[in-house]
Amino acid sequence: MKVNNKAFQSIWYETDTDKIWVIDQRKLPFSFETIELNTLEQCFWAIKEMVVRGAPLIGVTAAYGLYIAIKTNPNKTSKEFIVDSADYLKSSRPTAVNLEYVVDAISQKLVENIETSKLCDLALEFAIEREKQEIKNCSNIGHFGLSLIEDIYFKNGKQTVNILTHCNAGWLACVDWGTALSPIYKAQQKGIPVHVWVDETRPRNQGARLTAWELQSADIPYTVIADNTGGHLMQHSLVDMVIVGSDRTTLNGDVANKIGTYLKALAAFDNNIPFYVALPSSTIDFNMTDGIKNIPIEERHGDEVLQMECFVDGIVKNAHLMPESTTVANYGFDVTPARLVTALITERGICKANEKDILILFPEYQ
Amino acid sequence: MKVNNKAFQSIWYETDTDKIWVIDQRKLPFSFETIELNTLEQCFWAIKEMVVRGAPLIGVTAAYGLYIAIKTNPNKTSKEFIVDSADYLKSSRPTAVNLEYVVDAISQKLVENIETSKLCDLALEFAIEREKQEIKNCSNIGHFGLSLIEDIYFKNGKQTVNILTHCNAGWLACVDWGTALSPIYKAQQKGIPVHVWVDETRPRNQGARLTAWELQSADIPYTVIADNTGGHLMQHSLVDMVIVGSDRTTLNGDVANKIGTYLKALAAFDNNIPFYVALPSSTIDFNMTDGIKNIPIEERHGDEVLQMECFVDGIVKNAHLMPESTTVANYGFDVTPARLVTALITERGICKANEKDILILFPEYQ
Repeated sequence: MKVNNKAFQSIWYETDTDKIWVIDQRKLPFSFETIELNTLEQCFWAIKEMVVRGAPLIGVTAAYGLYIAIKTNPNKTSKEFIVDSADYLKSSRPTAVNLEYVVDAISQKLVENIETSKLCDLALEFAIEREKQEIKNCSNIGHFGLSLIEDIYFKNGKQTVNILTHCNAGWLACVDWGTALSPIYKAQQKGIPVHVWVDETRPRNQGARLTAWELQSADIPYTVIADNTGGHLMQHSLVDMVIVGSDRTTLNGDVANKIGTYLKALAAFDNNIPFYVALPSSTIDFNMTDGIKNIPIEERHGDEVLQMECFVDGIVKNAHLMPESTTVANYGFDVTPARLVTALITERGICKANEKDILILFPEYQ
Repeated sequence: MKVNNKAFQSIWYETDTDKIWVIDQRKLPFSFETIELNTLEQCFWAIKEMVVRGAPLIGVTAAYGLYIAIKTNPNKTSKEFIVDSADYLKSSRPTAVNLEYVVDAISQKLVENIETSKLCDLALEFAIEREKQEIKNCSNIGHFGLSLIEDIYFKNGKQTVNILTHCNAGWLACVDWGTALSPIYKAQQKGIPVHVWVDETRPRNQGARLTAWELQSADIPYTVIADNTGGHLMQHSLVDMVIVGSDRTTLNGDVANKIGTYLKALAAFDNNIPFYVALPSSTIDFNMTDGIKNIPIEERHGDEVLQMECFVDGIVKNAHLMPESTTVANYGFDVTPARLVTALITERGICKANEKDILILFPEYQ
């Protein structure tokens, strides 16, 4: 996607210099900064501290992390080193399952080729392949999701389609295109008028800071609302559909996504509004069949609730929203039960959120 | 309630000086400041700008506003002046119905006594009466609500009772005691261990700023959470009951309260957790029978979403949470349908949220 008329991805490999670059998403929307990732530890840090975030993007970052680990340690190309590096990267964040998948799949192939003189080239090839695949998957998700927006557009007599989304599942979260936002970008390209209700998404405000920035950059009409607002809008027919992303979806269709997603799904269900989850199959956990019981929910530092980088006196400063002595808790995700999900939008098409229908689209996991 | 070992109400009349004082709730929790209200316009401003907030408190403030209007305009004690002052005060905020009730009831009695030489004294008497009644009602709400907390305490084998609340319905909102928090203060007095999950309550953060401050001042254990979090806690049995306040409850039991309340009610219902609304009957709209269709929902300025008074570099400053160019909307309240409400806790006892049961407790409105 374009930023100030220049095409960007949220992560990219610069061939000339052999460098990995990412957008520092902690700094948006107040400043647009890019940084190099030069060591394995930096890749871990970037994922952990949410310099990069979003399930697809952290998977690709970890893939490049394995390449960087091998490149910067030419004398340590043992099986143990690969496995240790993989375990280290996987430990950065617990909820998104594709981080585990990507790192396991690539590290296994690297271990199989441990004697190869071209191990480093192979690691780079795998990472680039992962990056390209995510972009392709997200574009396909957009293609299929667009059909749902079109249906509503025609059903509603060609009125603007009002879509509510939670957190950021745009191109920033996914190398390019996005998951939840990809159908919205495709709708814009096709000339279908959309307006997006953007949940602020406390505590880290990825909606107000990243989704709003993405949509504003793309000239797509949007309105940021406090996370408390979606139910009221739905009661008053101001929302036509909900589209969110997912960090992990279990085989039975339970969806882990940013904390608060479950509340919006309840409101959509209560008001008979379709609730869609857009996700690449890399985020489906084919081994898990009860999301609420089994998906590990990350608890993050309370400072994310207490403090926020804000614009104060013309510069970005750390602002304390409440006194330091306030007792807080900070859960990163919740799980929306499959019964509240109208359908999943995947790179292979749209399916109901249940094991049977998921496996029809992805029979190789049967 | 006590602040630094000194007893306070959120509004009080100082007999010696004939002054009305309030706590400036915009400044909490960073500083505790009290201000005098000396003119009708100041009373309007204090309600409108949320120096004082909470349905019971704004009713009492408006009652004192009528007294101040008469006191400061000794030559204008016409019927028209009383009616105009009443209309002006009522126009300060639209959602809480008791503001209308209180102002109408008092202004009507004043109009009936317009020729009395003691009109000013009467206005003061009515305001003080209103203040005392609110305190008594809130204390009674606490008494009845306590029985619900006790039931859970004994049913759960004398474990700490975990209560979730949204916004601030404590003594700050209600002269003294509070509505939703009154049963919690009574439980503490009785030695029943409670822990309160406090919804931050964006955009104005009354939970994080006022409820947390109240509970911390009273040594009651609490944890502030982002508004997105309640559903997750309920799914994992970390909430035993929900108690919230109300700005207007219709005769059929629909509850207007701070935006986001509806989402928590949906989650409580989905997880079979009791959802109680604590309210004085002054906030019941006995003339309205469909809250979602008919209760006017206040839309406030977008700056409340964009900006916040924060502690920055050791002092309170205006912080911009997102760029000024961000498009935002700011709805103040939502309506929880009666079907999601387990029961209402009123000053006369507990009843189901329906017309029949409400009228059994309040037969004079039949």
